[in-house]
Amino acid sequence: MKKNKATIHDIAEKLNITASTVSRALNDNPRISDATKKKVLKIAKQINYQPNHIASALRSGKSRLVGVIVPTANRNFFSSVIRGIEDIANNLNYKIIISQSYDEFEKEVQNVEALLNARVDGVIASIGKTTENVEHFQKILEKGIPLVLFDRISNELEVSQVVIDDHLGAYQTVDHLIKSGCKRIIHFTSNQRINIYKERKRGYEDALVDNGIAVDPKLIFDCNMQLEGGRQVMQGILDQKIKFDAVFSSSDYSIMGAMQVLKEKGFKIPEDIKLAGFGNEPFTSFTEPSITTVDQKSVPMGQITAETFFEILNSDGNNVMGKKTILKPELIIRDSSL
Amino acid sequence: MKKNKATIHDIAEKLNITASTVSRALNDNPRISDATKKKVLKIAKQINYQPNHIASALRSGKSRLVGVIVPTANRNFFSSVIRGIEDIANNLNYKIIISQSYDEFEKEVQNVEALLNARVDGVIASIGKTTENVEHFQKILEKGIPLVLFDRISNELEVSQVVIDDHLGAYQTVDHLIKSGCKRIIHFTSNQRINIYKERKRGYEDALVDNGIAVDPKLIFDCNMQLEGGRQVMQGILDQKIKFDAVFSSSDYSIMGAMQVLKEKGFKIPEDIKLAGFGNEPFTSFTEPSITTVDQKSVPMGQITAETFFEILNSDGNNVMGKKTILKPELIIRDSSL
Repeated sequence: MKKNKATIHDIAEKLNITASTVSRALNDNPRISDATKKKVLKIAKQINYQPNHIASALRSGKSRLVGVIVPTANRNFFSSVIRGIEDIANNLNYKIIISQSYDEFEKEVQNVEALLNARVDGVIASIGKTTENVEHFQKILEKGIPLVLFDRISNELEVSQVVIDDHLGAYQTVDHLIKSGCKRIIHFTSNQRINIYKERKRGYEDALVDNGIAVDPKLIFDCNMQLEGGRQVMQGILDQKIKFDAVFSSSDYSIMGAMQVLKEKGFKIPEDIKLAGFGNEPFTSFTEPSITTVDQKSVPMGQITAETFFEILNSDGNNVMGKKTILKPELIIRDSSL
Repeated sequence: MKKNKATIHDIAEKLNITASTVSRALNDNPRISDATKKKVLKIAKQINYQPNHIASALRSGKSRLVGVIVPTANRNFFSSVIRGIEDIANNLNYKIIISQSYDEFEKEVQNVEALLNARVDGVIASIGKTTENVEHFQKILEKGIPLVLFDRISNELEVSQVVIDDHLGAYQTVDHLIKSGCKRIIHFTSNQRINIYKERKRGYEDALVDNGIAVDPKLIFDCNMQLEGGRQVMQGILDQKIKFDAVFSSSDYSIMGAMQVLKEKGFKIPEDIKLAGFGNEPFTSFTEPSITTVDQKSVPMGQITAETFFEILNSDGNNVMGKKTILKPELIIRDSSL
């Protein structure tokens, strides 16, 4: 059976070049000209050449696999980032394998081990909420393979990172709420060791101050960022009879929970209370009213993360060079704050 | 550095057993008694033993990785199945790596290659909508490692499969709509080569017939099962002025699209038109009205799929033995059909 299968030698023969040139062209080696690469790919397609990645990995020590660690792939943000990463990776003939940490530190440590076990050529990760140290990520660097972080990053690791300007996203949202007439704006936040929650809280505070409103710590609430958490925190706020005219949450899920409780208690949204979340989860446009939120540019973030990753992969030794890319988020104003 | 690291020999010494017994105990070998396994795990924890899976994989030829192929991990159904698979796998000290096909045949073929490249000990998969043949899955079986399918299965593969009773789920939903007074029930379906859509359509038809209502093919519409697809199909139905009093869709996303269009045109749900979807996506409880749907028992499906997988993995040679497990779905009646 194998005799009938097209090989790189068949391609080499047709183009009158060496098999190793064909191999390099197929592996996108920078030493091969684009013209040759195009010719090789054309013939490869014509004769239905199927690269044997396993054998090729054994020869080159490369698996052409990129490991991606996310808290969960079932968040629109993370799945869209993964989509962006795959766009770039697939074009370069690399495949993505995903491992979920569920925001559990121990699982994240095991994820790293599993991906190294799968012989990935590098790792792209977003750090879990309960992660206590970054030793497991150091292991990746010790292997001499690239690590790039996105969104939930760590300053303890000298690696390239891609984030959005969370401060700006929060600032614009709160500024919009104030300009819509709100004065007592509640903020839902989470673990301040995580850059995104810290930056969003800073944006909230700066927007208040810049509009001449003092920051009232009694209006800032810790929340697990889930729907149920948003419900509980809002219930507590109503029980305590705290006065407020808006809520800005660092998560769409918890603002959804807050909205459910407010509506159950007879509040009119946005007439009585204006609401805004963060993340642009698809359900925010399905609800009534639809929810004002911040789009995190997730597909471009994935594409830029992957481009950064492959730049490092293709330039031996620059692994620890930390390049930080900051993308601009977009405020999406919907009915919940109009 | 390595000298300071605890090894299986340290555990063996402390318990006065052989290193190979320790290794077997750590790998959950059935030949080792539960009592010994407990002792070994206790000492391993005490001396902070970190198993070196990579070295162990090289020795045993096992990676302790299970590859999971899904159309997308960003559907509550698939992510919940994966959660169920991980529950079982992690308890057995196996890790899951995920690869997404995006319902594209070519990507699915590459997924299989990538997972084999990552040296997985077996694959659990749900087949994509555009998959034309199952040769790539045959490759897994040819390697002598297990393959188990869930939800979107193929009768061309003699492997174990776990599904829900889609016919029953659809039958109960349509029966409920009829008992709520509906007579002209539209059905959104998709590619009939995919078992789930075929079975749900059969359930729809049987419920009509059993209630003395003739099946009208003009009320059955092909739909891509996305929100936008549901919008388009519903727009077409209204343009054609087709009379109907209910819609049952094989997907929550397309019923959501239909509901949006109906509400935009001034229809009252459920007074004018009753609606029901399939899948119990979380957003179906956030909408107004909340949407009647069918819960697919996704976490138990994942757990049973994984149990089936490990049963095969631990019993050499029974790979092709096809065992089909059928789970009962649950109709969840919400405001859209009351």
